[in-house]
Amino acid sequence: MDWGSILSQRMSRMKASEIRELLKLLDQPEIISFAGGIPDPALFPVEDYQKALAGALTGEAAAVSLQYSVSEGYLPLRRWLAAEMGRLGVVCGVENIFITSGSQQALDYLGKLLLSPGDTALVNWPTYMGALGAFNAYEPAYLRLNGNLGAAEVRAEAAASGGRPKFAYLSADFGNPTGETLDRAGREQLLDLATELDIAVIEDGAYQHLRYEGEAIPPILALEQARVGSIENCRTLYCGSFSKTLAPGLRVGWVCGASAAIQRLVLLKQAGDLHSSTINQIATAQVAETVFAAHVEQLRQVYGRRRSLVLEALAREMPEGVTWTRPEGGMFVWLTLPEAIDGAELLAHALKHQKVAFVPGRAFFADGTNGNTIRLSFSLHEKPAVDEGVRRIGQAIREMMARPA
Amino acid sequence: MDWGSILSQRMSRMKASEIRELLKLLDQPEIISFAGGIPDPALFPVEDYQKALAGALTGEAAAVSLQYSVSEGYLPLRRWLAAEMGRLGVVCGVENIFITSGSQQALDYLGKLLLSPGDTALVNWPTYMGALGAFNAYEPAYLRLNGNLGAAEVRAEAAASGGRPKFAYLSADFGNPTGETLDRAGREQLLDLATELDIAVIEDGAYQHLRYEGEAIPPILALEQARVGSIENCRTLYCGSFSKTLAPGLRVGWVCGASAAIQRLVLLKQAGDLHSSTINQIATAQVAETVFAAHVEQLRQVYGRRRSLVLEALAREMPEGVTWTRPEGGMFVWLTLPEAIDGAELLAHALKHQKVAFVPGRAFFADGTNGNTIRLSFSLHEKPAVDEGVRRIGQAIREMMARPA
Repeated sequence: MDWGSILSQRMSRMKASEIRELLKLLDQPEIISFAGGIPDPALFPVEDYQKALAGALTGEAAAVSLQYSVSEGYLPLRRWLAAEMGRLGVVCGVENIFITSGSQQALDYLGKLLLSPGDTALVNWPTYMGALGAFNAYEPAYLRLNGNLGAAEVRAEAAASGGRPKFAYLSADFGNPTGETLDRAGREQLLDLATELDIAVIEDGAYQHLRYEGEAIPPILALEQARVGSIENCRTLYCGSFSKTLAPGLRVGWVCGASAAIQRLVLLKQAGDLHSSTINQIATAQVAETVFAAHVEQLRQVYGRRRSLVLEALAREMPEGVTWTRPEGGMFVWLTLPEAIDGAELLAHALKHQKVAFVPGRAFFADGTNGNTIRLSFSLHEKPAVDEGVRRIGQAIREMMARPA
Repeated sequence: MDWGSILSQRMSRMKASEIRELLKLLDQPEIISFAGGIPDPALFPVEDYQKALAGALTGEAAAVSLQYSVSEGYLPLRRWLAAEMGRLGVVCGVENIFITSGSQQALDYLGKLLLSPGDTALVNWPTYMGALGAFNAYEPAYLRLNGNLGAAEVRAEAAASGGRPKFAYLSADFGNPTGETLDRAGREQLLDLATELDIAVIEDGAYQHLRYEGEAIPPILALEQARVGSIENCRTLYCGSFSKTLAPGLRVGWVCGASAAIQRLVLLKQAGDLHSSTINQIATAQVAETVFAAHVEQLRQVYGRRRSLVLEALAREMPEGVTWTRPEGGMFVWLTLPEAIDGAELLAHALKHQKVAFVPGRAFFADGTNGNTIRLSFSLHEKPAVDEGVRRIGQAIREMMARPA
């Protein structure tokens, strides 16, 4: 059986990540890793999950928790999320909330909902590589969202690719990989462009709650609602996740948007995996209702301190010619290296000689350019590891810079 | 925002189920329902899940259970499944096992892996409607697998649809909706056809373990392995599920097959939802290791008795002109009514006048024919409800038969 010969067309776009292969080396204990964009497991609300899961299996609750459930999601969780979206400035009801198995599944289903082969997705250069992975399965062309293209140019380019523009995808708050924030004026401009193009906006709010300084800017969905009145008139679909605030292992995320879009996502869910884990949704609702706000406040303290440690170490250790972002939240700092240095080559060198890891930046660009970039995650380490790890990165960069051209 | 105008082409294939709308009426307590194909929650191994989930959150285990994990699935669960597939006659290793969020997701990912728009899927008339739902998203044409088409005819029809045949999908053991078994000769013939067409076989084993009488027939994958030696040479991909044996609410299923296919499914999983719930996989591994065989034996006793009750009641209550299957396992009996009676009309009548429910059969046919069929699930009821419910169905059929033509 030659599997290569009977695959769907889309599989030509689905490639194993080279980075993933490189990062398998991370099992070596002496390596200091800034690679994985993962929450610190020491901060998981373990006792709250213990209580919630035990409760979900006590008495009559067990028959519900272990059974099939509806594709749109567990109603009390949707109710809590509608209220939480309200706290973020979005007025909505349960009919505007759809539960997914993590926000990665939201991106997959949104690609599935909107993209035919040859359609165009607008994404930032760089953007979350997992979004590119999800969308690639639906064979879009990409155009650069943060490249100042006007509506006429976008339309012309999209037509040249054989389709039409369908959505703009972005994370407006401390997104993966740069950690940067789109200011209010930028959000309004984006809405202007999306309205002119008559396309959807996919707002990835995975890091929304993790702000460590500065004033919160309303989500794009809230700004659009201020323009058009009802959420039912909005083109923005907000994707949220409990992975960064509570725990990723239960795979619970959501989409908030116009019910006309939500209902169609429910059809995809029914056909795709019936529903997300019933017991995990019940436990998440319980934990969210009980400790969400207080727990997020604790995360902000810890991750905010770790971000500052990394920024201080970068200022101390980076050679001339290296620049980086100064995120107000999230988990990532994004470094731009001298043009001659490729992030993947730097990683290979640094793993071997300095025993330090990070993620090379090229895979975050839809066109595979800008190889002279790397992403550091600051979610896991305290001062000793940060100081030593960033020192090692500086040393690796210096050694690469000193190579004969 | 007019969502209808920016949807992907595939969304024209994704429709809300009329049946689902009808069955929302089931909340009325006086209705006896044979509709839902769901396991009896009274039979869930609740205490075993309580122990397993508590253990997964105790001490250092919590940091793993609540964290991100690998896309291929939790290794000890894959190891147990490789051994379990061995007990079913399939020699394989962990590299041949891929964990999914229920076997519905396996069907979705297999459609995604193999189908480009216009390709052909061979399915039985009738077949599991959830498989049609999953595949529809990838815009195939369908041909009838159990219609005695030869390879040349299949190729010609598929070419006329604008693609090529990619796979045959079926449940060989007590499948949804008919409960029938494909005998060994039928399985061998299917393998002959698939080999001649050089297509994959998707074997849906969701009900595999629930045999109540007769001798087990090896899975198609096992029969193919006997022909070709190694699983790496097999074209059959076996989809399994814990939903019918342990509990559906955790959403844990698997695919077993050649590693060349498994590795590509892992790419789809990484792009689709990263991985299935970590804690649910850990708990499922624990429960499977501890009680799987004994628990399945208990299910066989209970469901087997309920099947016999339904068959006895049907023999007693059905009017002349109604025929039905006599399943050796699973959860379903399939009824063929006189041609003039439409199953959906019968359901509307029976809900209103007899307060009894079942699933009309048309949606199980890829071409929407054979409306004179209905599916009864026998998983939930004991003798009093079975006797009264089947009596009511008989009465409803008689009333429909007595209508003026």
